[in-house]
Amino acid sequence: MKNLGYYDGKYDLIENMMVPFDDRVHYYGDGVYDATCAGNHIIFNLEEHIERFYNSAGLLEIKIPHTKDELKEILKEMVRNVDGDQLFVYWQVTRAVAPRSHAFPDEKAKLWIMIRPTQIGDPKKLLKLITVEDTRFLHCNIKTLNLIPNVMAAQKAAFAGCDEVVFHRGDRVTECAHSNVHIIKDGKFITPPADHYILPGIGRAHLIRMSKKLGIPVDETIFTVNDMMEADEVIVSSSSNFCLSACKIDGQTVGGKAPELLHKLQEALMDEYLIATKQKEE
Amino acid sequence: MKNLGYYDGKYDLIENMMVPFDDRVHYYGDGVYDATCAGNHIIFNLEEHIERFYNSAGLLEIKIPHTKDELKEILKEMVRNVDGDQLFVYWQVTRAVAPRSHAFPDEKAKLWIMIRPTQIGDPKKLLKLITVEDTRFLHCNIKTLNLIPNVMAAQKAAFAGCDEVVFHRGDRVTECAHSNVHIIKDGKFITPPADHYILPGIGRAHLIRMSKKLGIPVDETIFTVNDMMEADEVIVSSSSNFCLSACKIDGQTVGGKAPELLHKLQEALMDEYLIATKQKEE
Repeated sequence: MKNLGYYDGKYDLIENMMVPFDDRVHYYGDGVYDATCAGNHIIFNLEEHIERFYNSAGLLEIKIPHTKDELKEILKEMVRNVDGDQLFVYWQVTRAVAPRSHAFPDEKAKLWIMIRPTQIGDPKKLLKLITVEDTRFLHCNIKTLNLIPNVMAAQKAAFAGCDEVVFHRGDRVTECAHSNVHIIKDGKFITPPADHYILPGIGRAHLIRMSKKLGIPVDETIFTVNDMMEADEVIVSSSSNFCLSACKIDGQTVGGKAPELLHKLQEALMDEYLIATKQKEE
Repeated sequence: MKNLGYYDGKYDLIENMMVPFDDRVHYYGDGVYDATCAGNHIIFNLEEHIERFYNSAGLLEIKIPHTKDELKEILKEMVRNVDGDQLFVYWQVTRAVAPRSHAFPDEKAKLWIMIRPTQIGDPKKLLKLITVEDTRFLHCNIKTLNLIPNVMAAQKAAFAGCDEVVFHRGDRVTECAHSNVHIIKDGKFITPPADHYILPGIGRAHLIRMSKKLGIPVDETIFTVNDMMEADEVIVSSSSNFCLSACKIDGQTVGGKAPELLHKLQEALMDEYLIATKQKEE
């Protein structure tokens, strides 16, 4: 199939799927999601994404109506049935279908899934970024469906002909509209701490692990917009963009001063992906 | 009919309505809404709600696919067809139906409407409130569908056996989870200024206007949690709860020290509603 959707037990092409008017996501954005990619019909880092998904749901007291194993099986089966070398694997849970009322209803949560072709980010691509004041809520550690500020910022980047946004709260860099951001400075990998201001990115976790493995010291600490502008490299990561570097921020040239470290990280992470998805032999 | 739903030109009972999987509200909560009540099948303060709705949409660059007059006619026609002396009149616009991607697609926005029976808040009811730290985003002036913190707070109130939440940023009182909050102190009506921390409530606007009409001085200014606990009256307002007072906050007794002013406001606002909806003669 060219794509596949799922809602509460029903499957169809995404464009044919319909959902009930009273799903609480319509009134409150009341749900959480997770997403990764699949290569060669093998879902990448599935365990970690499943763990984060259940954690996001738990923080909002949403009871996912499946065990982790059941969810993994549903996802794997769907991924087998969609055409494409690389797939976007997206799923979410919404609290309930019930008449609009803020407090929780006593109804079962709804699982949603969407599988469609995608492209893994090409590490050779250099990103152009813009900075935007971070006006989001203080729950950015939870992967929720309340993403209007992210949407508005991403549109600003698109309108400026750029690829992503770097959010900052005052001076402090937090993350991107749909990625994490990091810097390399003086041979060290520096990334904002995983607090309520950023998503604990799984791409971020692998960048940290891989840096350590390659002997690059890691510092999880706050850095400023100015630190970023003067960094040796500015790195953007997500679950399908493992380690992209930026060449421009707000029109100014940035990074490009530690290409060896950057390429070592990029190659090592791409290799892991290709091996995990059996597109390359170990 | 017992209720009525609308989505992008289609009408049905709410429980029969279905919407496309790829509506962006599912991925981002990407939309804005407004709501009011109708009495005697006449929509209360319709002009003001329509104006606020278009303003919310405009701030997020969502193009509502109808003129104000067209929308008013659709709402009025629907309200005529639903049974009940008092109706909840709710509508929203979502940016588009399009495959998930943060930046705006070039597709038409979708109008949603829901009409169902409701009850106007009884002014004699005394509210119990709890306080919750306000961790919401900095766009609370826009009536968006990104309401998870409001949902979580409302659930906390319900769990505590209370009616509403008072949000505060540090010491500063902002608003409630789905209402505005005000105080009476030393004969003055005090309400937080209409900035990005609160919704410019239409119930709030009418409380301000009515206070002035009744000779009660109005001060639009910041007040603290402590100011609220020691106020003569604590007032909660929304579009269907014109002027309710609180008797308890976090279990402590509050208000009750300016009953005459409170009742004057309550009676005057209820009279306006009954006259506007032809339930009482002028």
